[in-house]
Amino acid sequence: MTVAVIGTVAFDSIETPRGNHDRILGGSGTYASVAASLFAPVHLISIVGQDFPDSHIAFLEARGIRTNGITRAQGQTFHWKGYYTADMNQAHTVQTDLNVLLEFDPLVPPKAQTADIVFLGNIDPALQRRALAQFVDPKLVVLDSMNYWIQDHLASLKETLKHVDLLILNDQEIRLLTGIDNVVQAIPVVQAMGPGRVIVKKGEHGALMAGPKGLVSFPALPLRDLVDPTGAGDSFAGAIVGVLATSDLQDESSYVKALITGILVASATVQAFSLGRLEQLDQGAISTLFSSYKAHIPIPDTI
Amino acid sequence: MTVAVIGTVAFDSIETPRGNHDRILGGSGTYASVAASLFAPVHLISIVGQDFPDSHIAFLEARGIRTNGITRAQGQTFHWKGYYTADMNQAHTVQTDLNVLLEFDPLVPPKAQTADIVFLGNIDPALQRRALAQFVDPKLVVLDSMNYWIQDHLASLKETLKHVDLLILNDQEIRLLTGIDNVVQAIPVVQAMGPGRVIVKKGEHGALMAGPKGLVSFPALPLRDLVDPTGAGDSFAGAIVGVLATSDLQDESSYVKALITGILVASATVQAFSLGRLEQLDQGAISTLFSSYKAHIPIPDTI
Repeated sequence: MTVAVIGTVAFDSIETPRGNHDRILGGSGTYASVAASLFAPVHLISIVGQDFPDSHIAFLEARGIRTNGITRAQGQTFHWKGYYTADMNQAHTVQTDLNVLLEFDPLVPPKAQTADIVFLGNIDPALQRRALAQFVDPKLVVLDSMNYWIQDHLASLKETLKHVDLLILNDQEIRLLTGIDNVVQAIPVVQAMGPGRVIVKKGEHGALMAGPKGLVSFPALPLRDLVDPTGAGDSFAGAIVGVLATSDLQDESSYVKALITGILVASATVQAFSLGRLEQLDQGAISTLFSSYKAHIPIPDTI
Repeated sequence: MTVAVIGTVAFDSIETPRGNHDRILGGSGTYASVAASLFAPVHLISIVGQDFPDSHIAFLEARGIRTNGITRAQGQTFHWKGYYTADMNQAHTVQTDLNVLLEFDPLVPPKAQTADIVFLGNIDPALQRRALAQFVDPKLVVLDSMNYWIQDHLASLKETLKHVDLLILNDQEIRLLTGIDNVVQAIPVVQAMGPGRVIVKKGEHGALMAGPKGLVSFPALPLRDLVDPTGAGDSFAGAIVGVLATSDLQDESSYVKALITGILVASATVQAFSLGRLEQLDQGAISTLFSSYKAHIPIPDTI
């Protein structure tokens, strides 16, 4: 099956305790599409400015990501500048230059309109709906969002959620969306808004997933070396939709495999700036990560 | 094997979103010894005041907990008053009446001195050392502590840690003890202080364990109903030492089973005030919890 990703393509200027880099390739659409491309053909729908180098486009195309849905507008590419302190849990924004993102109006190319899985990355919920309306009966609609849209555009986000099959948020966002502190209690409230399936990201603590057959919980891969957390959540989501594109979207076990793969891919992403580690992943590397993951969770048959 | 628990016996006055109760039975030694008594014979070394009812002593004795190491001093029993808000992650102290705890000087009865496993609950590290010195060559020394001792009695705590085999702390305490934000990086620094094995409690996110064969990570059992978090950490530790008392203390798998049992027992503890749920546990109930736990972590053979 094919995947369409709607999201941002950005330049990131990032400082972490492990170094700093200016204007490196980033953006939710970039991370998600590169992660998804490990498993399935991907269409990326986004917008960049005149300053966006052809070499980045060529890099995406070489990975099997169709880029004719990336509008090249007059002006500068979206630029985010931020830093992380030692705990690496929280991104601190120094400067956000929305630039061409201000005029982003997703235009889904004809060949992308029949994508089987649509991933609506973290943008204005109204734009997410406008993008979604251009697809012909997708089999699975997946959505990411963030605290800004939950706080300031809640009605619009709720309207979008009615059309979503799988919602991916972090634990703070789930609490914000529902006003419920206990995530296990909050999940059914979110499901009542539309998404039959919900994945709750918990960073270094792993992830929960609630679907029609109940709740599962997986730890993260314990990491000694964290270089740059940027893109962890986007590559997590991208890997999930990529793996799901290789499944029948029915078996619960497919969703579990997708979730674990998301955890492993995210753990690779944070071990380098930009796409440095993510772009090197292949099935062999993911299998090796999975062997390590299983070894970290030696659940016995009985206790 | 037998277990000796050194810790507090207290009256707790607690308010949570699920109710409030005055002067209910609590204390780190109480929770730890009751949890350990599910698996092994236990000696409890503590102190109470003249106001402590015989019925509580009889309750402990009926569980196979030897109480002749509990000094009954002139004065009132240690009393803690506190509350939890909706997130239940943090205990807020309203009042601490140390009372007879001010004169606690652990006296280990002769029959307890040959205990195989010594659990030094969260008290002054100098008292922990004084207690430990009274035991005859224990096979395993386990220690719990808290932020107060780490901040204000660090040298004394480090002296005690030299004699400890297994240290159990939460993630914030590990960070405080080492000054390192990444827990995976902090663990070997703690091991260099003495304890060859370290368990890191993460509350609703489960626990990590580092031993001579590396690191394992387990999620918590997802809980919809949290009634009172008090005693979760103490019953977690108590269950661990109780299970270890049924093992040869050698196999890594024994430590894994002990850790998972600790997670399950703690998840039961928080579902009632005081010992309401903990005291009802038996092997059958723990097996049922374990079946539920495994179902929540369906790790596939391959991805």
